[in-house]
Amino acid sequence: MSNRIITLGEVMMRLSTPGHERFFQTRDYEVQYGGAEANVAVSLAFWGQSVAHICAFPDSDIGKAAIAYLRSTGIDTSFIQKNAGRMGLYFFEGGAMQRASKIIYDRAFSAFAQFDGEEVDWDRVFEGADWFHWTGITPAISEATAKLTLNALKAAKRHGVTVSGDINYRRNLWQYGKSPLDVMPELIHHTQVIVGGVTDLANCMDVHEEDYVTACQKAQADFPSITHIASTDRHSKSSSHNILSGMLWNGKQLLHSRSYDMPNIVDRVGGGDAFMAGLIFGLLNGSDHSALEFAVAASVLKHSIPGDVNFVSLEEVQDLVKGENVGKLLR
Amino acid sequence: MSNRIITLGEVMMRLSTPGHERFFQTRDYEVQYGGAEANVAVSLAFWGQSVAHICAFPDSDIGKAAIAYLRSTGIDTSFIQKNAGRMGLYFFEGGAMQRASKIIYDRAFSAFAQFDGEEVDWDRVFEGADWFHWTGITPAISEATAKLTLNALKAAKRHGVTVSGDINYRRNLWQYGKSPLDVMPELIHHTQVIVGGVTDLANCMDVHEEDYVTACQKAQADFPSITHIASTDRHSKSSSHNILSGMLWNGKQLLHSRSYDMPNIVDRVGGGDAFMAGLIFGLLNGSDHSALEFAVAASVLKHSIPGDVNFVSLEEVQDLVKGENVGKLLR
Amino acid sequence: MSNRIITLGEVMMRLSTPGHERFFQTRDYEVQYGGAEANVAVSLAFWGQSVAHICAFPDSDIGKAAIAYLRSTGIDTSFIQKNAGRMGLYFFEGGAMQRASKIIYDRAFSAFAQFDGEEVDWDRVFEGADWFHWTGITPAISEATAKLTLNALKAAKRHGVTVSGDINYRRNLWQYGKSPLDVMPELIHHTQVIVGGVTDLANCMDVHEEDYVTACQKAQADFPSITHIASTDRHSKSSSHNILSGMLWNGKQLLHSRSYDMPNIVDRVGGGDAFMAGLIFGLLNGSDHSALEFAVAASVLKHSIPGDVNFVSLEEVQDLVKGENVGKLLR
Amino acid sequence: MSNRIITLGEVMMRLSTPGHERFFQTRDYEVQYGGAEANVAVSLAFWGQSVAHICAFPDSDIGKAAIAYLRSTGIDTSFIQKNAGRMGLYFFEGGAMQRASKIIYDRAFSAFAQFDGEEVDWDRVFEGADWFHWTGITPAISEATAKLTLNALKAAKRHGVTVSGDINYRRNLWQYGKSPLDVMPELIHHTQVIVGGVTDLANCMDVHEEDYVTACQKAQADFPSITHIASTDRHSKSSSHNILSGMLWNGKQLLHSRSYDMPNIVDRVGGGDAFMAGLIFGLLNGSDHSALEFAVAASVLKHSIPGDVNFVSLEEVQDLVKGENVGKLLR
Amino acid sequence: MSNRIITLGEVMMRLSTPGHERFFQTRDYEVQYGGAEANVAVSLAFWGQSVAHICAFPDSDIGKAAIAYLRSTGIDTSFIQKNAGRMGLYFFEGGAMQRASKIIYDRAFSAFAQFDGEEVDWDRVFEGADWFHWTGITPAISEATAKLTLNALKAAKRHGVTVSGDINYRRNLWQYGKSPLDVMPELIHHTQVIVGGVTDLANCMDVHEEDYVTACQKAQADFPSITHIASTDRHSKSSSHNILSGMLWNGKQLLHSRSYDMPNIVDRVGGGDAFMAGLIFGLLNGSDHSALEFAVAASVLKHSIPGDVNFVSLEEVQDLVKGENVGKLLR
Amino acid sequence: MSNRIITLGEVMMRLSTPGHERFFQTRDYEVQYGGAEANVAVSLAFWGQSVAHICAFPDSDIGKAAIAYLRSTGIDTSFIQKNAGRMGLYFFEGGAMQRASKIIYDRAFSAFAQFDGEEVDWDRVFEGADWFHWTGITPAISEATAKLTLNALKAAKRHGVTVSGDINYRRNLWQYGKSPLDVMPELIHHTQVIVGGVTDLANCMDVHEEDYVTACQKAQADFPSITHIASTDRHSKSSSHNILSGMLWNGKQLLHSRSYDMPNIVDRVGGGDAFMAGLIFGLLNGSDHSALEFAVAASVLKHSIPGDVNFVSLEEVQDLVKGENVGKLLR
Repeated sequence: MSNRIITLGEVMMRLSTPGHERFFQTRDYEVQYGGAEANVAVSLAFWGQSVAHICAFPDSDIGKAAIAYLRSTGIDTSFIQKNAGRMGLYFFEGGAMQRASKIIYDRAFSAFAQFDGEEVDWDRVFEGADWFHWTGITPAISEATAKLTLNALKAAKRHGVTVSGDINYRRNLWQYGKSPLDVMPELIHHTQVIVGGVTDLANCMDVHEEDYVTACQKAQADFPSITHIASTDRHSKSSSHNILSGMLWNGKQLLHSRSYDMPNIVDRVGGGDAFMAGLIFGLLNGSDHSALEFAVAASVLKHSIPGDVNFVSLEEVQDLVKGENVGKLLR
Repeated sequence: MSNRIITLGEVMMRLSTPGHERFFQTRDYEVQYGGAEANVAVSLAFWGQSVAHICAFPDSDIGKAAIAYLRSTGIDTSFIQKNAGRMGLYFFEGGAMQRASKIIYDRAFSAFAQFDGEEVDWDRVFEGADWFHWTGITPAISEATAKLTLNALKAAKRHGVTVSGDINYRRNLWQYGKSPLDVMPELIHHTQVIVGGVTDLANCMDVHEEDYVTACQKAQADFPSITHIASTDRHSKSSSHNILSGMLWNGKQLLHSRSYDMPNIVDRVGGGDAFMAGLIFGLLNGSDHSALEFAVAASVLKHSIPGDVNFVSLEEVQDLVKGENVGKLLR
Repeated sequence: MSNRIITLGEVMMRLSTPGHERFFQTRDYEVQYGGAEANVAVSLAFWGQSVAHICAFPDSDIGKAAIAYLRSTGIDTSFIQKNAGRMGLYFFEGGAMQRASKIIYDRAFSAFAQFDGEEVDWDRVFEGADWFHWTGITPAISEATAKLTLNALKAAKRHGVTVSGDINYRRNLWQYGKSPLDVMPELIHHTQVIVGGVTDLANCMDVHEEDYVTACQKAQADFPSITHIASTDRHSKSSSHNILSGMLWNGKQLLHSRSYDMPNIVDRVGGGDAFMAGLIFGLLNGSDHSALEFAVAASVLKHSIPGDVNFVSLEEVQDLVKGENVGKLLR
Repeated sequence: MSNRIITLGEVMMRLSTPGHERFFQTRDYEVQYGGAEANVAVSLAFWGQSVAHICAFPDSDIGKAAIAYLRSTGIDTSFIQKNAGRMGLYFFEGGAMQRASKIIYDRAFSAFAQFDGEEVDWDRVFEGADWFHWTGITPAISEATAKLTLNALKAAKRHGVTVSGDINYRRNLWQYGKSPLDVMPELIHHTQVIVGGVTDLANCMDVHEEDYVTACQKAQADFPSITHIASTDRHSKSSSHNILSGMLWNGKQLLHSRSYDMPNIVDRVGGGDAFMAGLIFGLLNGSDHSALEFAVAASVLKHSIPGDVNFVSLEEVQDLVKGENVGKLLR
Repeated sequence: MSNRIITLGEVMMRLSTPGHERFFQTRDYEVQYGGAEANVAVSLAFWGQSVAHICAFPDSDIGKAAIAYLRSTGIDTSFIQKNAGRMGLYFFEGGAMQRASKIIYDRAFSAFAQFDGEEVDWDRVFEGADWFHWTGITPAISEATAKLTLNALKAAKRHGVTVSGDINYRRNLWQYGKSPLDVMPELIHHTQVIVGGVTDLANCMDVHEEDYVTACQKAQADFPSITHIASTDRHSKSSSHNILSGMLWNGKQLLHSRSYDMPNIVDRVGGGDAFMAGLIFGLLNGSDHSALEFAVAASVLKHSIPGDVNFVSLEEVQDLVKGENVGKLLR
Repeated sequence: MSNRIITLGEVMMRLSTPGHERFFQTRDYEVQYGGAEANVAVSLAFWGQSVAHICAFPDSDIGKAAIAYLRSTGIDTSFIQKNAGRMGLYFFEGGAMQRASKIIYDRAFSAFAQFDGEEVDWDRVFEGADWFHWTGITPAISEATAKLTLNALKAAKRHGVTVSGDINYRRNLWQYGKSPLDVMPELIHHTQVIVGGVTDLANCMDVHEEDYVTACQKAQADFPSITHIASTDRHSKSSSHNILSGMLWNGKQLLHSRSYDMPNIVDRVGGGDAFMAGLIFGLLNGSDHSALEFAVAASVLKHSIPGDVNFVSLEEVQDLVKGENVGKLLR
């Protein structure tokens, strides 16, 4: 039942203000590590999968600390490279009530940004792998990381590995002279499971449809490798109160999940990654419908945990899907 | 107006993760002390009662720190024993949103578990006492503590003291070869005020009725010492949001309290103990109806305070009963 | 677009229990600085105004730390005096749920209480100023500070400066032998913009009307200097959940703002000061209606920030007025 | 072997910067409670003595927290009064290396300063007492507390209790119009064991001798009640490194203790109080010589503990006197 | 150059008071994990060796957190078992100055104590291994763990692995009915490198010689498997100031290392384990003399790091041996 | 007596591990701000000088927080620019004992690195200024900042301002294609007071002399603008224990200061900057000899304070020079 999953993407040091302090007033930053793809990796490892994450860190004590964190979660870190360049950082200020959360990225010139994967033995990476996961953040960082993504995708194809891609379009990346439409389509042609909303599909796949079903149909027509397209549907009443559901297009119909009311959010960063992880786990282990419900429940639980990462067990997600132990005091 | 109240039960060191951190990720534990019966004791002391708590601690600096905590709250600790054995511990991870709270008990082989009370001068303990309180946790721990409970109850009877017992049935205790029905009925026959729900009554009193009124009537029939049976009624929408009310059977009718909406819970541990304390205080000082309302209001306030213990004043509870100063900023 | 604004009032050291700990249980106090008028000053400085705050501190390292704080926010502290007397303090325990927040003031005998402003060169203070702000707290502290307020108001008048006064009636001040009605009317006669509710108007202006419009009309009749009267309208469902709106009488009609639901309050202290600052900024820069909406939105955001002070930018308030970026994750 | 000891004196809230932070830069204060006489009381309670401390606190949650602290240490707090007035505070900045430690007192107008002890039933206080301890700080605070001290001393005399007084001359107290020589001699005439150096003897006993032996002889001649005079001898190489010894005049000769090198001081506040406590314990339980060595060893250990108070056991002091377990890792 | 090293022994949760707080006064415990043998394992992993640690944990979130810690350091945790029983704990209070450090063990009834290794595939464990390390703590815990040690040693012998044993005699273990001399000799007969002082040799090897050289000669005569015997030589001037050197008997002569003055100790726990790790590394990679110097330098550096474990790099130890970068500020 | 002093240089965010934690193990970073020249500026402002610091920050909340810090210290921040680029960071791990302290710089691509000062109105900056201070760090960062330094120096010359330069040669800067000898000589030709040791003089002034007096004479011969050359003399016995003195060449003789033993260092970062500040203050206000003693005493005190900056008063430095209040407890 344990699958082998490969993930690829930058891991940054996250420096968060404690409580709901603003950047202006804080005197301490809490250190964690996160990145969209590694967050997925950790979730999957917590659910008993065998996961290897590929990235690059500076060869410093800071880089060592980041590796130690990844290793602690049970991920295989043996393919991680040491590179010139700095540790990518991001500063996080947790919002509350009507006040938005803020992230200040400081990821330029990182070791990862200069990582093109030439020195990686991709065939060893994908030996025995069942799934590969990438996001649109990686090709958006630099020429090198766009090439890295393509290299990985080609190797995944050689090994017959199922591929998921979280499009994750971010406007303030893509600074190296290429536009998403220059780069993303080729990558998506190697991908079976896509996560993205209509904006992502428009920006990265040139699919301009307001209606999600129509957009999915068009996307599948243009990118025949695609089997599934999914997205969360988040309504932010405030930073402390969101309503979350998910939807999954499986080539035939658009499935909708239960909707969860979340009025006491602890930390919403990584909510999308938790959904992604849940979807991968679910599709590897069950029906489309159960995969979707699992993914949304996983995402909901993430909002209750400080940091980027969804430190929840398989049983905890399954319980929430079944509506068991919700808000209990388990002794 | 100050009554003399005796309580009996284990006090554990509580080690809580800060914020909503999970056990997996924490690096610090906050130290507090708590136990169902001592939590009741502290509440009553805060409301001006003269309270002595009986338990046993290891003869170590850790045991001394626990005594210091109890003493700080104003409890009479002069009957506390030093015993062989360890300090009982429990690790607490506060839930949030849909994610449940978790307690990992580490209480086996504690000094208290080996405490049979033979060396206690029970007549001195109960001299001038008005009330004695015990819970079903104590006889569930060990042969020794079952005997301890019975010894205390017999002495209480000799001194004509009113007795309350919170049945508090916990399946994962009762590991020493006896079942609740072997032990609890004799103890309950010495008790006037019972707190328990239908499950508790079934497991410890052999009263199997779904309807609470019927169950209370049957319980009173089987255990003629009983004058009152009470219970909280908690609906957990999530770890952060509960709805709480209480009910009290006084031999004639089932009284229902106001229902409180609690959408921003800080710490729900000890909520039942706060209710129990409120009920004891209320029955000692007023009508059944006012006792019930006082007990529920006390329990509500507990949910706003970190730790096991309800550090609230008499006035604060009374204000909530009257709906005064709710959510105000008092200068 | 940057106006010159002068504020006057005591700045105290605020010692807050962490989390929702009660005074009884805390072992650490977080240090901040605050005061009704200085809170207004900081808000205005954050919105790009040139603000000088007038107060007095003891000539000690504690006083220096308070000045350093004020200076860090961008306020002009060059008029602050060093005086005999202690630093005014207040201890703050944050409420939660139904449990009220508590402030214990320890401000008697402070350096500010002995500050009559005789040594201040008021003409230099008000040179080029557009606005002066005072509150009813200052004249309530001592004979000296009542005189201080009057001296400042007379100088403001000489310089043709618009004046706002937040009546802020506090019963447990006014201990020096004068009643509000002995002192406040003369001060209000120098004031154009008043913030106060019907109770404030009754106690400090001898205007006894239940209906706010009638009260405003009467107040304007008695105090012809007044052009605007405003107030927040706060409904406290609990310490964690308030509903907030504002109203502004502009001599012709009573304007009402949008009403904001605030179910996850972080810290409500300074909410009124944030409204006051918003009103000053708004009246200096726009219509009565937009001023009121700006003031309420500013106040709402304050409730999401730990401490007395509303560390929010102009854009953040404007966004909330427009309903933009509410509860988003801004990257 | 347990003696009954009465102590009298103000207990202040101590607000300390963490680590070696300066007042200017701190953002948190750690809360403890301390006072010269109560520090003595806690030491003695830790060594198994029955100790009651007399003081007054404001009737507030802050006062309650202070009482809780005292109670936690095992002291009898039943004679403590609630009074009008504030909680005395002191701010503490721990020095390091050549940089001095700093205390900013904020004790004026405290509840204790207005406490004259008229309402205390002194005969009940001293019933069964063996020892009474006071310091020169109390009569230096106010007319009321000077009277309080005298009242206590007279009652102690009535009950035949041995009295110790730590002169503890502080120039910046004595602000209420009396000089030490107006007040202290009468108090010292009721005292048997005096702690003070030549400066203290000069300022409070009018004994002006440079040589300690000569000063002690003169003091005993002028104050025939005195049986012992003692003092620590501290050489401060730096805030982190002191050298400490003690001396004790017993009417016949000046005994000198071992000298301790202390190059890694954690917190030197309360070092003198620890000596005082050790001296009382030692004189009650042994020879002059062993009392002196016990007192100095107790004081040395205090320097290793954060806060005012010497939380060390009898065995730990005795071990240091014997040179056992010094710097060991005890498992 | 990377060797494969197997270590065996219990890993406990360490709960340390912050700063130099005493158990009595602390409100927080810092969580780390440690154990004599795992501390050795982590050091070796930090120096680039391939290390697998064998132990057992309870199957709980607490057990998972302990594994996560071990994994983070780079150790192979794949042989770790999940067992019934609790997590072994120890409470740590860091001494300072003359005050001793204190450890309160709470390790009875742990998962490890019930671990006899029957379910371990020892041949797989020792496949390709170069070294095995055990200590006298393991056989001292229980009948099961004595058997575990013997099982491991026999398997190590089958695979021709070099074995080191740190005798580490602890009087307050050995509670299960056997004496050290019943158990240890057989284990030592399978061991080549012994760490122990004369007391250890007397208690566990029945070698009663005051002189270390004579003791080593006698030990080697009685236990022909032994090739090396080593020990640290620690002089504790105080908890903050130790003087440390080491000695190594290599069958021919007793080598002595440099002596290090350590006047500002941060945390001395694990100092012996750091020496042991250094000795293993040194003997695997160099001469007896260089091994000893490396071991002592490693131990010195440990004293500067909070926690049980010596998080220092190979280069840092080598630099200290060479006297380079000592106390520098490396940019 | 208050002089106007201008300083120029990058201010970085310093992220320090708490206590003596290593980068590998920390979970929190404490935030401070520092930079060689700004550290000088703050010292001078603390001693009553009027100081303006020139630098550039990113236009973000992080940049605003840095400005707020500088402003809090009393520095004039009105010339600070907002620039493209990131905030320069450095990570700090405090050493202890023999273990070195470590700094990991992450300052590349900062807003300051791209700051050439073209947009600064230098004539307004230097209007009324008495002194200008720069260091060799600034021209070592980038082409732009080398130009910035020269621009500032030329303007300083136009205004007849005395100039000090701390050569501060750092090998791992100077990455932009120029060597120190390409850039530094021109800058030093505009400078009167130089701080540097023989290595600095060799690398930046092409003065290759082992003997400091000879080197100073040669330097003065080659750079006729120079009037004084100074240096600290630090002997690092360990990270916790340094011995510090200073020397000053005044064109005629080499003055030597007292030597200070510093066996309990809290934080040595900024020790050189504190010396530099002391020298500037001293030369502006007294003799060469008193300037040197003041500078060394200031530096010594810095080592007792957490962070980069020497938060000490004029009186504290003067007291240390006189040997007063050393290691006292000032009440």
